[in-house]
Amino acid sequence: MRIAVIGAGDVGGTLGRRWAQLGHEVRFGVRDPSRGAAAVKGGDALPGGATVVTPVEAADGADVVVLATPWGAVPDAIRELGAAVEGAVLVDATNPLGPNLALDVGPGGESGAERVQALAPRARVVKAFNTTGFNNMADPVYGGEPTVMFYAGDDAEAKSAARALVAALGFDPVDAGPLSRARELEHLAVLWISLAVGGLGRDIAFKLARR
Amino acid sequence: MRIAVIGAGDVGGTLGRRWAQLGHEVRFGVRDPSRGAAAVKGGDALPGGATVVTPVEAADGADVVVLATPWGAVPDAIRELGAAVEGAVLVDATNPLGPNLALDVGPGGESGAERVQALAPRARVVKAFNTTGFNNMADPVYGGEPTVMFYAGDDAEAKSAARALVAALGFDPVDAGPLSRARELEHLAVLWISLAVGGLGRDIAFKLARR
Repeated sequence: MRIAVIGAGDVGGTLGRRWAQLGHEVRFGVRDPSRGAAAVKGGDALPGGATVVTPVEAADGADVVVLATPWGAVPDAIRELGAAVEGAVLVDATNPLGPNLALDVGPGGESGAERVQALAPRARVVKAFNTTGFNNMADPVYGGEPTVMFYAGDDAEAKSAARALVAALGFDPVDAGPLSRARELEHLAVLWISLAVGGLGRDIAFKLARR
Repeated sequence: MRIAVIGAGDVGGTLGRRWAQLGHEVRFGVRDPSRGAAAVKGGDALPGGATVVTPVEAADGADVVVLATPWGAVPDAIRELGAAVEGAVLVDATNPLGPNLALDVGPGGESGAERVQALAPRARVVKAFNTTGFNNMADPVYGGEPTVMFYAGDDAEAKSAARALVAALGFDPVDAGPLSRARELEHLAVLWISLAVGGLGRDIAFKLARR
């Protein structure tokens, strides 16, 4: 797959590097592409198959566009992407976090993902990669067993693509339903973060057990 | 411990029966105690150590009062309990669910648990037993390993009592922080329910893996 990763911080950098190592073509879309590999968190050099370009160059023609900027940068990022995400699979890995881990929800309780969809009405938005730390994205296997990654969206084809990217990393991919379930997934992110900073540390991960 | 269980549906019935089987003194507080064991879901007869009384009789002198009514019945239940829950450890196992699994949140995003605390300001409220199905409360062990039960509250002593009741059932008890984290735990309940009714069935449970 050809994957655009918009934002190259801990989450975007980790995800894109791993997909590139797995053989996907990854384009990191960043503000200042002239920085090259230095713009992408997670290592000094980039793996083969990964390049650093502008967000529009990254998204243009991509099979999947992964949004991994800070929440505050989302509106500008989507505006800048413009036509490049029309019809695209847009995976929202962000979390609308305010101070003290308070979620910034919409006036009707809307999740960040639903507002991403409103900002990019012709994109096919899937929420994913928001419910755990980047350390778990680098290695989602605990004691030989995959930890869970939930995803939610309204477009079946877009969800299939997101699921494949989830599974490729080694997560147990679980369909959480329509995009409005991103409300639950964003609260799950808050739970993970609060447990991690509240004393358990980052080496914790959710699993979904079946009998 | 002497435990009052207010409401004896699937959740209250399952919890109270198990604690009684483990040797605790359990008083089910129900609207019509004359129904006896028939008022308590989960079996024909009651285990030894369990009785069926009015809510006030159940709560009076209890070490822990567990609120397990439907959400719509919570305000009346707390009003009826009145002085019987002053200073008490009040474990809120309810979920403020509206139609289509929409959470009924307060005007400032308050969880149900925070509204329980507001209705019973002198009780020491702990959120627990709300994030999984009653089938898992009956048997929280999957493949030889405990599944997780989160709890949240502002009073350390009350949280210790709730944690002991969580652990007694065989759950992995995890402190999720202050009572305001009930916002996350109630959304986690919605996630569990939506997964269960969305096709995975009720034999699923969350775990918290540690490296």
